[in-house]
Amino acid sequence: MKNSFGSSLTVTLFGESHGPAVGVVLDGLCPGLPVSKERIDALLSRRRPSLATDTARVEPDNWQILSGVFEGRTTGTPLCIVIPNENVRSGDYDYGKARPSHADYAAFAKYHGYEDYRGGGHFSGRVTAALVAAGGVVIPALEAVGVNVGTHILQCGGVDDDPFSDAIEREIALLAERPMPVLNEAAARLMQEKIAAAKAEGDSLGGVTQTAVTGLPAGLGEPWFDSVEGALSRALFGVGGVKGVAFGVGFAGASLRGSEYNDPLRVEDGAVRSVTNRNGGVNGGITNGMPVVFRCAVKPTPSIARPQQTVDFVTHENAEITVGGRHDPAIIRRVCPVIDSVTALAVCDMLAGRYGTDCFLKGIGL
Amino acid sequence: MKNSFGSSLTVTLFGESHGPAVGVVLDGLCPGLPVSKERIDALLSRRRPSLATDTARVEPDNWQILSGVFEGRTTGTPLCIVIPNENVRSGDYDYGKARPSHADYAAFAKYHGYEDYRGGGHFSGRVTAALVAAGGVVIPALEAVGVNVGTHILQCGGVDDDPFSDAIEREIALLAERPMPVLNEAAARLMQEKIAAAKAEGDSLGGVTQTAVTGLPAGLGEPWFDSVEGALSRALFGVGGVKGVAFGVGFAGASLRGSEYNDPLRVEDGAVRSVTNRNGGVNGGITNGMPVVFRCAVKPTPSIARPQQTVDFVTHENAEITVGGRHDPAIIRRVCPVIDSVTALAVCDMLAGRYGTDCFLKGIGL
Amino acid sequence: MKNSFGSSLTVTLFGESHGPAVGVVLDGLCPGLPVSKERIDALLSRRRPSLATDTARVEPDNWQILSGVFEGRTTGTPLCIVIPNENVRSGDYDYGKARPSHADYAAFAKYHGYEDYRGGGHFSGRVTAALVAAGGVVIPALEAVGVNVGTHILQCGGVDDDPFSDAIEREIALLAERPMPVLNEAAARLMQEKIAAAKAEGDSLGGVTQTAVTGLPAGLGEPWFDSVEGALSRALFGVGGVKGVAFGVGFAGASLRGSEYNDPLRVEDGAVRSVTNRNGGVNGGITNGMPVVFRCAVKPTPSIARPQQTVDFVTHENAEITVGGRHDPAIIRRVCPVIDSVTALAVCDMLAGRYGTDCFLKGIGL
Amino acid sequence: MKNSFGSSLTVTLFGESHGPAVGVVLDGLCPGLPVSKERIDALLSRRRPSLATDTARVEPDNWQILSGVFEGRTTGTPLCIVIPNENVRSGDYDYGKARPSHADYAAFAKYHGYEDYRGGGHFSGRVTAALVAAGGVVIPALEAVGVNVGTHILQCGGVDDDPFSDAIEREIALLAERPMPVLNEAAARLMQEKIAAAKAEGDSLGGVTQTAVTGLPAGLGEPWFDSVEGALSRALFGVGGVKGVAFGVGFAGASLRGSEYNDPLRVEDGAVRSVTNRNGGVNGGITNGMPVVFRCAVKPTPSIARPQQTVDFVTHENAEITVGGRHDPAIIRRVCPVIDSVTALAVCDMLAGRYGTDCFLKGIGL
Repeated sequence: MKNSFGSSLTVTLFGESHGPAVGVVLDGLCPGLPVSKERIDALLSRRRPSLATDTARVEPDNWQILSGVFEGRTTGTPLCIVIPNENVRSGDYDYGKARPSHADYAAFAKYHGYEDYRGGGHFSGRVTAALVAAGGVVIPALEAVGVNVGTHILQCGGVDDDPFSDAIEREIALLAERPMPVLNEAAARLMQEKIAAAKAEGDSLGGVTQTAVTGLPAGLGEPWFDSVEGALSRALFGVGGVKGVAFGVGFAGASLRGSEYNDPLRVEDGAVRSVTNRNGGVNGGITNGMPVVFRCAVKPTPSIARPQQTVDFVTHENAEITVGGRHDPAIIRRVCPVIDSVTALAVCDMLAGRYGTDCFLKGIGL
Repeated sequence: MKNSFGSSLTVTLFGESHGPAVGVVLDGLCPGLPVSKERIDALLSRRRPSLATDTARVEPDNWQILSGVFEGRTTGTPLCIVIPNENVRSGDYDYGKARPSHADYAAFAKYHGYEDYRGGGHFSGRVTAALVAAGGVVIPALEAVGVNVGTHILQCGGVDDDPFSDAIEREIALLAERPMPVLNEAAARLMQEKIAAAKAEGDSLGGVTQTAVTGLPAGLGEPWFDSVEGALSRALFGVGGVKGVAFGVGFAGASLRGSEYNDPLRVEDGAVRSVTNRNGGVNGGITNGMPVVFRCAVKPTPSIARPQQTVDFVTHENAEITVGGRHDPAIIRRVCPVIDSVTALAVCDMLAGRYGTDCFLKGIGL
Repeated sequence: MKNSFGSSLTVTLFGESHGPAVGVVLDGLCPGLPVSKERIDALLSRRRPSLATDTARVEPDNWQILSGVFEGRTTGTPLCIVIPNENVRSGDYDYGKARPSHADYAAFAKYHGYEDYRGGGHFSGRVTAALVAAGGVVIPALEAVGVNVGTHILQCGGVDDDPFSDAIEREIALLAERPMPVLNEAAARLMQEKIAAAKAEGDSLGGVTQTAVTGLPAGLGEPWFDSVEGALSRALFGVGGVKGVAFGVGFAGASLRGSEYNDPLRVEDGAVRSVTNRNGGVNGGITNGMPVVFRCAVKPTPSIARPQQTVDFVTHENAEITVGGRHDPAIIRRVCPVIDSVTALAVCDMLAGRYGTDCFLKGIGL
Repeated sequence: MKNSFGSSLTVTLFGESHGPAVGVVLDGLCPGLPVSKERIDALLSRRRPSLATDTARVEPDNWQILSGVFEGRTTGTPLCIVIPNENVRSGDYDYGKARPSHADYAAFAKYHGYEDYRGGGHFSGRVTAALVAAGGVVIPALEAVGVNVGTHILQCGGVDDDPFSDAIEREIALLAERPMPVLNEAAARLMQEKIAAAKAEGDSLGGVTQTAVTGLPAGLGEPWFDSVEGALSRALFGVGGVKGVAFGVGFAGASLRGSEYNDPLRVEDGAVRSVTNRNGGVNGGITNGMPVVFRCAVKPTPSIARPQQTVDFVTHENAEITVGGRHDPAIIRRVCPVIDSVTALAVCDMLAGRYGTDCFLKGIGL
């Protein structure tokens, strides 16, 4: 299960940046789910470079479904999507000189020099296109049972967005329509300026995302090692650049006292709700009926247009490198639909585990 | 795999706070590993309440190995350790009133009222005693192949410890001997004062831990969904109270530019090393030969001696609760050996996956 | 997952023949299932030596549930049962001389001499007591949703029992009450004579069992590698001595023509049924609504009271061995409740995977 | 893990008979393995219809590797092979009337009518082309470490082949070159006559295969539920038509006495060997250093050119069906390379689990 996650719905990823294609197999999908070309395309377009500051490598993402869909609906058998790599320029890379903060040296140590190094190979962000296509299959199915997923840039280049408010569902709907997935439009403009400035200086930025999942029933997840936090984080850390995952108020909560942190509970319209949601919708690893909310720390894009100290791991000599290729000065915008997709896939797995493989046909309540 | 983690070495946890026993099964251990009563006891004693501010529930932890050990060494077959629950006072709990920030309501939603609610049942920190006993089995095996694991309290009650320096192995050795696992002894005293103050006010504290794993070869871990980060975080989020996991400089790294974040590489004594370790020893999900370093955010102990707003989930009415029972005002000290143990178990799984089940007999290099 | 099977309900086995205890952890049980001491005892008593021809090692099987049961019902958290080993005589074994047809040499090759060899250690049939105790937990839950499991000795010592007829459920009920689980009582008497004769000659017998599972809905199982046949056989081959598993008419079906083998379908009381059941209730790996029926080939007990040619794998010299210890001349009778238990556990896993973890509370139909 | 097997090397299958393509993902391959177009083509050609009695649907099998291979060698990252479906005639099938002994009704029950029914969809033997292509990747890697796999038709149409003798490796080499994988060439001719006769009568045949794996070290496999027998059978029952799996002398062994069945052990050239191999190379679920030998019972091809009683599961009425489409009167010949491939993949998984993911680079001995 190296490149897979999920036990009821298993997601298996394959592909290299400059190989024939990237792709994904989804095994365990509920049969009968409508598959919408428009939704998959829309989600992929949110991941595609489009702003002036984005990378110059733009792929058309002509995905094709090879299996598991019949007459426009999932069959319940494994669904394989492939996306050919078309806009490939392999001449830009030079084997042996490790690009700092990239996987080059770690991959060499793991694969003994047999790895496809071109464009980062299997470690390239290109592979996330397949994850997003998969997200485009399952996100509509979640919506149909009342579950919504949305991610915005909470912080980038020193600029803070507003965190999700109590009107999360409306905010999620807004995000899907914006070129920059940011709630506060002034913040969005400022972030873009910061990104442009970093680019102009041959530098890069990271950022923090915030994701919310609404509509999940209480009682989802497993204690200890398949906790909602554990299952989501295992999948989220698969996304290149994610170096931290924190639920609710996250690391800030570690500085609060119990009397400040604990979420008071109230009965509201017959349902148990918490007044605040500092726990991020999860207690003891199990959903409590509040929105599941978490943050991801995304490190700055490793590729920068400046000379860096490195080594040549073939000759074992010190070296200098100026990374070529086409890159984003900040991937934070494009990472949002990837996080949405990974989250949606992991949530489908949890639902299928608890309510059975047909739960999207039968409904997810008791 | 709800209460299990690991594929080559699988850890399965069982037990409730007020049931007969807690325990763990380790399946996939290398045969021939010496099992040391002293080491298991020593690790358990670091988890046991001992300071004035700790909970009054002190368990003797009379663990017993039921299987998988013969003539003082692991056999390679499943090793089951059980620890009887002895110091149990079940009268302190009142079913139906959810303790805020605890798993009570989530567990009710999941188990429909059949859960053993006494003392938090399966969600109790008591269950971590079994994890620590398991840690006591594998940590010496890691040491024997040159891998060391250590965790300190990086922050508690507004007091900061020094982060790990370049002398991590010496620091790890120091931590094992201190009642408070803190590198800076002045900080340790201050933290204890803060904890005592919180206790006096009927309140509680959280904190942040920092963990380092030294001696790991480069090339460990799997891309995408069994990344070092993903595998560790899945296990770490199983530890009660952990709400965030971040590698290297973690969330702070999201504010750096690429030129500030990237770790320059150098050849040192013939080996590839990075000058800094902001990536926390992992690139692309794979170890790069530097120490693996991460932080966990631990929320404040949910149980506080103050009245809190809550609901009775049986009657579906609003209620007030003042949590009884015996609790720690801060679990951060006792959580350190738990994190060490979980980390060690996850690392053993990675090593066994890459180098085979007998790697602790054969050595872990190529 | 070495000593485990099942993904929705995971069964993990531990223990050695002469260690402190054998045991099992069941993770993924539906909450709220009544746990009956009587049923567990009754199933264990069917596995216990009782006939004149059985082994002289009789264990009281004083099992204890350590976790996962509260007020007489499953909680939904991991249920651990342990059974102490009490009637142990370790002096009977002599390390190094491999007992032919036993796991001695294979275990040495695998565990490098660290294995607990006493009484066959982890490979001993003793460990199946834990499986049977686990069967005693889940079999009543299956019955409550209309699923029944039964196994009889189809062949032993050249004597054939009647195969299951169309009145399987009545036959299953009969089997539970008989000391020899055989449908035809004359055949039972003959089998016992054959076993007694083999014992008198210092020899042993094998046999073939036939198992039926009634009441399963159509649509259970997964295509390709989690087929009903694949999932059951993986679990069944775990039972010591099982060397073959065949569904429906099994190997005999390979000699039939399609026109003789194919099961004609008919509508009966509104349901799709087949007139015959040569496919054993499974098509394409998926249940078709007919009883699931299969056979297991059980090899003769390896331990015989005659001198045999062997090797000493420590000195690497040829040797002769006359196996001591206390053994059954035929385990076929005692293996039946083990097969029932393994089958029941695997079926629970399939049901939980398809209908969700709470399916025994909610019912297993759409 | 529905359509997957293997934990160190995971095989995931996808595709439908009349969809765009069938394919497979191999995750966990050792890096650096040469991938030979010739070997993959050769194995696929053994599966392809070629004899007069075979089906008229002949596919060119223009497979393409989408990922995981670079400069002719495996990279160690997931290898995806797809094989487009080209010779498709979908008009031959009529939804609702279940073809007896096929998966039609079971699939309907499972997928609620959303299944791609054309040509048997995901349940079609067509999907095994992807398994065979995968076999073509790993079989040369096994050969390079001295492990050989071969399967012959032991019985078909009442004609028996010779079982494997002591010269298994030579026999395996012979089989690869013969149009009918049968050791005794006279038997091969007779079998073909029987198949032709069945075809002429609009009927079909099944058969029994025998497979041997040579060169495996002792100590492979896991006790209880990842036994060699359990792991292989789980994978083998995935192959359409396999209804029984038996190791060594299999079901016949159940009629032997211990004194007749037990394999005497001898030291030969310094190695522990058994004089006979009735256990099929496995004791206690673990290899003992002898060839692993097993049989599969393959039921007769369900599709026959005669009218059969059935039901229409949409209208719930009795019906008659004469199965159209293009089919084999006996798939037993074409199933042999499928069994070889599945076996080779499962064996690679066992080796990688025991000796680590790089074991094909490092060698598989201690």
